[in-house]
Amino acid sequence: MIKVGIVGATGYAGEELIDILLRHPDVKIVNLSAKIDRAQNISAIFPKLKGRIALICTLPDIKEITRKCDLVFLALPHTVSMEIVPKLLSAGKKVIDLSADYRLEDVKVYAQFYNTVHKDKMNLVKAVYGLPELYRARIKGAQLIANPGCYPTAGILALAPLVALNLVDSGSIIIDAKSGVTGAGKKVAESLLFSEINEDFKAYKVNIHQHAPEINQELSKLAGKKINVTFVPHLLPLNRGMLETIYLKKKQKSKNKYEDLINLYKKCYKKEPFVRIRGEGDFPKIKDVAGTNFFDIGIKDCGDSIIIIAAIDNLLKGASGQAVQNMNIMYKFPEYTALL
Amino acid sequence: MIKVGIVGATGYAGEELIDILLRHPDVKIVNLSAKIDRAQNISAIFPKLKGRIALICTLPDIKEITRKCDLVFLALPHTVSMEIVPKLLSAGKKVIDLSADYRLEDVKVYAQFYNTVHKDKMNLVKAVYGLPELYRARIKGAQLIANPGCYPTAGILALAPLVALNLVDSGSIIIDAKSGVTGAGKKVAESLLFSEINEDFKAYKVNIHQHAPEINQELSKLAGKKINVTFVPHLLPLNRGMLETIYLKKKQKSKNKYEDLINLYKKCYKKEPFVRIRGEGDFPKIKDVAGTNFFDIGIKDCGDSIIIIAAIDNLLKGASGQAVQNMNIMYKFPEYTALL
Amino acid sequence: MIKVGIVGATGYAGEELIDILLRHPDVKIVNLSAKIDRAQNISAIFPKLKGRIALICTLPDIKEITRKCDLVFLALPHTVSMEIVPKLLSAGKKVIDLSADYRLEDVKVYAQFYNTVHKDKMNLVKAVYGLPELYRARIKGAQLIANPGCYPTAGILALAPLVALNLVDSGSIIIDAKSGVTGAGKKVAESLLFSEINEDFKAYKVNIHQHAPEINQELSKLAGKKINVTFVPHLLPLNRGMLETIYLKKKQKSKNKYEDLINLYKKCYKKEPFVRIRGEGDFPKIKDVAGTNFFDIGIKDCGDSIIIIAAIDNLLKGASGQAVQNMNIMYKFPEYTALL
Amino acid sequence: MIKVGIVGATGYAGEELIDILLRHPDVKIVNLSAKIDRAQNISAIFPKLKGRIALICTLPDIKEITRKCDLVFLALPHTVSMEIVPKLLSAGKKVIDLSADYRLEDVKVYAQFYNTVHKDKMNLVKAVYGLPELYRARIKGAQLIANPGCYPTAGILALAPLVALNLVDSGSIIIDAKSGVTGAGKKVAESLLFSEINEDFKAYKVNIHQHAPEINQELSKLAGKKINVTFVPHLLPLNRGMLETIYLKKKQKSKNKYEDLINLYKKCYKKEPFVRIRGEGDFPKIKDVAGTNFFDIGIKDCGDSIIIIAAIDNLLKGASGQAVQNMNIMYKFPEYTALL
Repeated sequence: MIKVGIVGATGYAGEELIDILLRHPDVKIVNLSAKIDRAQNISAIFPKLKGRIALICTLPDIKEITRKCDLVFLALPHTVSMEIVPKLLSAGKKVIDLSADYRLEDVKVYAQFYNTVHKDKMNLVKAVYGLPELYRARIKGAQLIANPGCYPTAGILALAPLVALNLVDSGSIIIDAKSGVTGAGKKVAESLLFSEINEDFKAYKVNIHQHAPEINQELSKLAGKKINVTFVPHLLPLNRGMLETIYLKKKQKSKNKYEDLINLYKKCYKKEPFVRIRGEGDFPKIKDVAGTNFFDIGIKDCGDSIIIIAAIDNLLKGASGQAVQNMNIMYKFPEYTALL
Repeated sequence: MIKVGIVGATGYAGEELIDILLRHPDVKIVNLSAKIDRAQNISAIFPKLKGRIALICTLPDIKEITRKCDLVFLALPHTVSMEIVPKLLSAGKKVIDLSADYRLEDVKVYAQFYNTVHKDKMNLVKAVYGLPELYRARIKGAQLIANPGCYPTAGILALAPLVALNLVDSGSIIIDAKSGVTGAGKKVAESLLFSEINEDFKAYKVNIHQHAPEINQELSKLAGKKINVTFVPHLLPLNRGMLETIYLKKKQKSKNKYEDLINLYKKCYKKEPFVRIRGEGDFPKIKDVAGTNFFDIGIKDCGDSIIIIAAIDNLLKGASGQAVQNMNIMYKFPEYTALL
Repeated sequence: MIKVGIVGATGYAGEELIDILLRHPDVKIVNLSAKIDRAQNISAIFPKLKGRIALICTLPDIKEITRKCDLVFLALPHTVSMEIVPKLLSAGKKVIDLSADYRLEDVKVYAQFYNTVHKDKMNLVKAVYGLPELYRARIKGAQLIANPGCYPTAGILALAPLVALNLVDSGSIIIDAKSGVTGAGKKVAESLLFSEINEDFKAYKVNIHQHAPEINQELSKLAGKKINVTFVPHLLPLNRGMLETIYLKKKQKSKNKYEDLINLYKKCYKKEPFVRIRGEGDFPKIKDVAGTNFFDIGIKDCGDSIIIIAAIDNLLKGASGQAVQNMNIMYKFPEYTALL
Repeated sequence: MIKVGIVGATGYAGEELIDILLRHPDVKIVNLSAKIDRAQNISAIFPKLKGRIALICTLPDIKEITRKCDLVFLALPHTVSMEIVPKLLSAGKKVIDLSADYRLEDVKVYAQFYNTVHKDKMNLVKAVYGLPELYRARIKGAQLIANPGCYPTAGILALAPLVALNLVDSGSIIIDAKSGVTGAGKKVAESLLFSEINEDFKAYKVNIHQHAPEINQELSKLAGKKINVTFVPHLLPLNRGMLETIYLKKKQKSKNKYEDLINLYKKCYKKEPFVRIRGEGDFPKIKDVAGTNFFDIGIKDCGDSIIIIAAIDNLLKGASGQAVQNMNIMYKFPEYTALL
């Protein structure tokens, strides 16, 4: 039975973590904290949890957290995590950070996209990018996990098999991404009001979103050369789920046919508990993955080009579910525990 | 061609007023103002209006407003209107106030429900409650219109014919009301975020909502005795529209049958351009009135009791549409101008 | 490990049953059937289930079902269940029927509200109404469970404590109910199309809904006298969840105060794993129960009258969750197994 | 005052046409028909129209229609229009056909995408593709208008200026399109039920949609050479509105900068009453155009490539609004009449 804490327990990712961990037989939640006005029972904040947990959520108290917890989940805004991580690590705790603070290896890119200087380069080099399908072996022994962003999770998994084998014209990749609103977090802004978003749909941060460098970093490592995707995210009028429609050109020499492609993906992901590959002409929709930790993918061969459609639940495989998957790997629990 | 200004132009009611008035052949919008950070073109704030209007929206400048306008619409939060109204009236302007500041005749009730002392009792007595179906004659000559609340508009129109004839057990009236989210205004609050309201439904201010005294005031005047309704509002996950399901007991001596009831309503509202009465077993839904200035009503006779279902668009008949209807009456324009 | 079958596996209740039972450690789903054009893998019908179950869903084959199953869930339209139940019972199987066929004790009432003659009066008398909070003892030994309707589950649980103690003016009860769209089942009708329901809200079957007699039957038994509620259901533009706003007058002699009321409910439901009672001024919303098997209730004392607000998930406590709760009771599994 | 009829009056496009034409000062609706079970007042079918129109909607009676109407709008399913058009034309009537039957010049392409042989080649050659921004001069004198599809309207207008000047790598165009559900028409299908579409999002007819050849036809004519776009439509969980995110590569020799691009569009569309072009970094969203006849466009220069975002209301500029715009041109009414 491991003892875990959640910092940032009152946001959407925090709520989801609590919900998952309450179903986990090997975990006990012992500390909940967030930036709140006054300490109160978490089930007063989330009446849905009443009868399942009765823990007081307080302001984060690092001493208390390190005293009580084996592992800490950080579901915090970007830039806040790196204030806390050094303290937790030096106290010997394991940390799974759901923010972007330890995802980008290049601090110049971090500074450019998050408008702030990175303050913890020491630990940045130790962090393992928590995408199990690529880094399972390293996750096993990691002390600090940089849990991937939602858009990157879907985009990287969708492209990894092709990119790793150098089958893609590297300048041709376009990711047209659509996300549910919980992806924006519980931010109190006019643009996120119900009456603004309901019956609306829009693109935002057109080709300047901070998840693009995260995708580029991982794809470039796989390809062994620089890859820059075109990335346009959109906001869907629904709560949870994410779908990416991806367009790319094949490299001249690699005119793979559909069967080759699908076999490539099946081989690449054959042991993955949360990857599901569709048959020809069959594509996932958001409902197929909402409420699950699955990554679903469908592929269309168009001769010189390929269209890929990939879907995840942004709060599960795109955030809290993947965080628990990483925890399961770190502690050698069956990887799907609490996630089916 | 009358010249109008709108104070509070950037909220939902303000946007709706602009949209309606741009289609009005006898009106020119000459001033738009709101509590905004910096002056900017209204079509930059509402890109939907681009190509239809190119007026700069500024902070309210009363001198400028009184210099330019014949009539001023106030689409302001409660308590702000009564700061401005005296200045506009003393400059000889006509005012249609969409806030609650001039609706309640009893300032003690106002203080109780709006948590503030009324600051303009002088003009309060001059204000005409702008429900055309009850007060058309007085609206014609009014200088200050207190435009009714959305819940009261539906509730009073639904009950007026029965209450005026004293056919109702006065302690029995229950109004179970459901409103779209624009009814709450463009208030930046966590409880109004998309991810909070979408896929949710809840009651709020259970039997303590500030629209109850407004309904009680008008029904009591009609009845010639004190009436207190039970009033429970709910928040629907949709943008616009409002439906009220009303339950009441008949007075012992007045066992009217369905035909009597329906004829009573038809007689009462026979010349009304925006009241539509359904046949037996037929009830309005929100879609029948959304985007229109109509008040739709269906009635079910249950022997000793009656069930009434009434629907309006909260932003039109419940706010901006009714405000323009009042303006049309004041200026002797055909009452439906710009409203069909 | 008990072996279960689901007849009607392709509807919303069927899908939900599969999802719950796959998480149940003591149950194995061995047969899935429905009225389908051709046999196919259930995960082809519900891609969400891919990787979790790979059973072929066929047309119902009673021989096959009785050969394989210990317990059969029927998630069928009304009138279809009573064709199948006799065969399953005579083969010695246990049955949990989610339709209305065995809920109404009076076949005349059944005929009136379901427009058909009851064809299985023999077994009707053996059926136990599967509301654990009222009938747990009898459920333990039952062979046939009539799983309650969604509206009745919320309404009966909300009123039972008051009615059983005879504290209510029996002619005064009004249930204003609002349900998500899955409550209507997966019926292909124009009125259930997305573009019809989205941004709409309406009442339907105003005071003539078939769940009213079910509520009346149970409340009358509790009261020891005839109770007839006024019942108006409405359709919410959301997928799942149900909220009932209930109005009633106290009996003259029973002027209980809030504390008395709340203590009454707490005492009545103190051992119930799925009943949660709110404090004063606190009311449940649909989100608090959606995705859970909980029944949440808030109560407001208004002097002579009481307002109750109750919420459930129509597919869980209102259908499939309650069905599994009944199964857990029948087989002496912990009652919350697979339901938290 | 021209007299018009609408065949297919009970669908979404038909309802929208009635709503627009009732506000048109120079038009009288004299005939409404549709495939209905029994003749009934159109305001019984659409209670929203009560008090605005009281015409009986019948089965289509061509004799009656030709006797009464000057102009007939056909809001019919594909393949049904071409049964009726010849009769109307030979009776000397003007026709605006909202179906796809007269849009594709090549009957082989029509056969391929609509799975049926074209039955009216005679009139096909006379039809004018009703996109005013391209064909205004020919629309003026046309007897038969093939009103464009919704996806093609947005896609062609978004690309026409670049394609006409041969600035685009012709094999590089990708249109990632997202449409509200009314775009699918009022088709009673399980896939269009509220509970299926709400909280979901999916691609469909991936690169095989029947609107692709329509886009290709018009772009190819503009370019003077064959153009084949990659076209993936998606279904949004909202009622009305459409957004297309378009990706393309510039031709090597044409490295236009943002200012050049935007000036090109402004010049091309400078006299268009319903085209609105955004400034740099500013992109339209669906709400900016929903309920209007505007086509809004934003453009991003990415060096070698361009990203375009375009939005229309699928029922207005994408169907009924454009149909009325065409009528206004044919009859020399101001082009925006009834459309602002």
